[in-house]
Amino acid sequence: MFSPGQLAGRPWGVWRYREALGLQPATEVVTLGEGGTPLVAANVTGQRVLLKLDYLCPTGSYKDRGATVLVSKLREWGVSEIVEDSSGNAGAAVAAYAAAAGIAASIFVPAHTSAGKAAQIVRYGAQLVRVPGPREATTQAALAAAERSFYASHNWSPYFHAGVKTLAYEIAEQLQWTAPDWIVTPLGGGSLVTGMYQGFGDLRREGIIGRLPRFAAVQSERCAPVYHAWRQGLKDVPPVEKQDTAAEGIALTSVVKGPAILEALRGANSVLLTVSDAELWMALEHLAGRGFYVEPTSAVAVAALPHLRRQGLAGPNDRVVVVLTGSGLKATDKIVEHFQRKEADSEHAH
Amino acid sequence: MFSPGQLAGRPWGVWRYREALGLQPATEVVTLGEGGTPLVAANVTGQRVLLKLDYLCPTGSYKDRGATVLVSKLREWGVSEIVEDSSGNAGAAVAAYAAAAGIAASIFVPAHTSAGKAAQIVRYGAQLVRVPGPREATTQAALAAAERSFYASHNWSPYFHAGVKTLAYEIAEQLQWTAPDWIVTPLGGGSLVTGMYQGFGDLRREGIIGRLPRFAAVQSERCAPVYHAWRQGLKDVPPVEKQDTAAEGIALTSVVKGPAILEALRGANSVLLTVSDAELWMALEHLAGRGFYVEPTSAVAVAALPHLRRQGLAGPNDRVVVVLTGSGLKATDKIVEHFQRKEADSEHAH
Repeated sequence: MFSPGQLAGRPWGVWRYREALGLQPATEVVTLGEGGTPLVAANVTGQRVLLKLDYLCPTGSYKDRGATVLVSKLREWGVSEIVEDSSGNAGAAVAAYAAAAGIAASIFVPAHTSAGKAAQIVRYGAQLVRVPGPREATTQAALAAAERSFYASHNWSPYFHAGVKTLAYEIAEQLQWTAPDWIVTPLGGGSLVTGMYQGFGDLRREGIIGRLPRFAAVQSERCAPVYHAWRQGLKDVPPVEKQDTAAEGIALTSVVKGPAILEALRGANSVLLTVSDAELWMALEHLAGRGFYVEPTSAVAVAALPHLRRQGLAGPNDRVVVVLTGSGLKATDKIVEHFQRKEADSEHAH
Repeated sequence: MFSPGQLAGRPWGVWRYREALGLQPATEVVTLGEGGTPLVAANVTGQRVLLKLDYLCPTGSYKDRGATVLVSKLREWGVSEIVEDSSGNAGAAVAAYAAAAGIAASIFVPAHTSAGKAAQIVRYGAQLVRVPGPREATTQAALAAAERSFYASHNWSPYFHAGVKTLAYEIAEQLQWTAPDWIVTPLGGGSLVTGMYQGFGDLRREGIIGRLPRFAAVQSERCAPVYHAWRQGLKDVPPVEKQDTAAEGIALTSVVKGPAILEALRGANSVLLTVSDAELWMALEHLAGRGFYVEPTSAVAVAALPHLRRQGLAGPNDRVVVVLTGSGLKATDKIVEHFQRKEADSEHAH
């Protein structure tokens, strides 16, 4: 672990916190300038919040934090070929860092992944494999391929997880080594929640911050396995049926780290919320109308803010950090299609 | 002007250098977390260079540096409605900052602007006006509309220009207050070249750096008015005929600031280069294969590196900074189309 005094003079970004990331001291890291993203005050949904713009990472999502550490470790190990499965963002991140490291990557994604993510994965030089069916079919196909390669799963790797911890370190440092009252975050495979929980936990254990923030973790109501398990007080997360949702990045019907996610949520005295696709799109438009252009998945965190207020949880003087995870530029096709359909519908109605 | 000693403890980004930006001390600035972008060492085209990843600004291009200062000034003045014309990136930047400031914006763009840029301008809540014909027709249409509004042109505004200076400040600070040997940059309307020239000039005048970097300014060979004026030793830049080029962001057949651009280029002991569209696409693919995903326009700077080497200009021990200006995620449509056509052509050839 690092101490804050060590950090002066180091550039901002994930590797500012190198001592906490589990690499050999001599390893030359694989970096594309990830992390060090802005924390910007803004008035959204009638509330003063701090937006953590993690979509300004190199490949357009927070997954770069995990990928830089994971791929650095793979290079340390001498791995030359990997397989990864992803709804798109982690695949793009792993493809980019693998390219930078000279590691051959095969990235398995669901057939419906946004065109922007698919195009960037191909251009990074990875082999892109589109898999029909639910998100889990993608994982199965990747696992089968991994029998002849190295399975560099962002959901399983402790090194990917270590990289995500830096999101917590960075937020705390941007707040002069204090914790905010709330972290509002999308919840899908759980890497954000478990990574940030461990990151803030590290800081508290070392006495660098005095307490943990509470988490408000947000799922799509069309695919909310963790939400349902939480409400039922379960210790693991059973799979659910899902309906189509625009929140492609968090639409997992089953999660591989159920117990760890539930433990992190409990440890952070969390609130779980769900939002509808209609709320998601309204939040996306609302945010863009203030200059912040995110992908549909990322908008769920903002869509949940009115719920959090209505339930009397986040008070007007609370410091609320909303993590914005992915760039709207990745989802041009989905965003254009939605608003064209909406306009066509409203013309019909007249 | 600031002094380096003042900056300790300030967040990275454009407003770190506030004293140099010409705003009233009391003005509350319009910020989306722009600037503070990574400077990353990488091996491209067989050469060790430093890549300045300015495509990691909030709207996906370096134009945010200018827009944050311009729109902050507009708010200081109480302007409530603006018109801007752009090939796309400046339009997206001005639309985003206008949205954040509550200023109504009409953005005029050429009809062929990338889908990604058009979509984000609309989502920021601006009125998007697509203008058929050459880039200059867009300016004419904007000027006509500006008779009933405020013309917030990024090409004319000294405040936009002041914001771009911060790119020079930031590079110098990232190099411990030294200048690199070379700055390699795309050249279109000239705001990058004139802004950086003034920025490095400020630093030299104050004794913060000892000398200026040389500029290598790159145009598309299909539209190279400044290159031709430079070769002929002219004092202004006459318009040229242009052919279609993928470098949409710099494809201006005439430039409004010709004398200022030529003066900056002379002052920085510059080299002017042109590259073909074939070289541009090879450079884009080469960069992406190392993890850096840029829009076609931005790739011209990397495409020019072999020319610079071949002409014996940039030596192997020179510190060469390449400015990467716009995100590949903005141009998914153009990038996918190009590589699909390329594959189809190569299948035909078999």
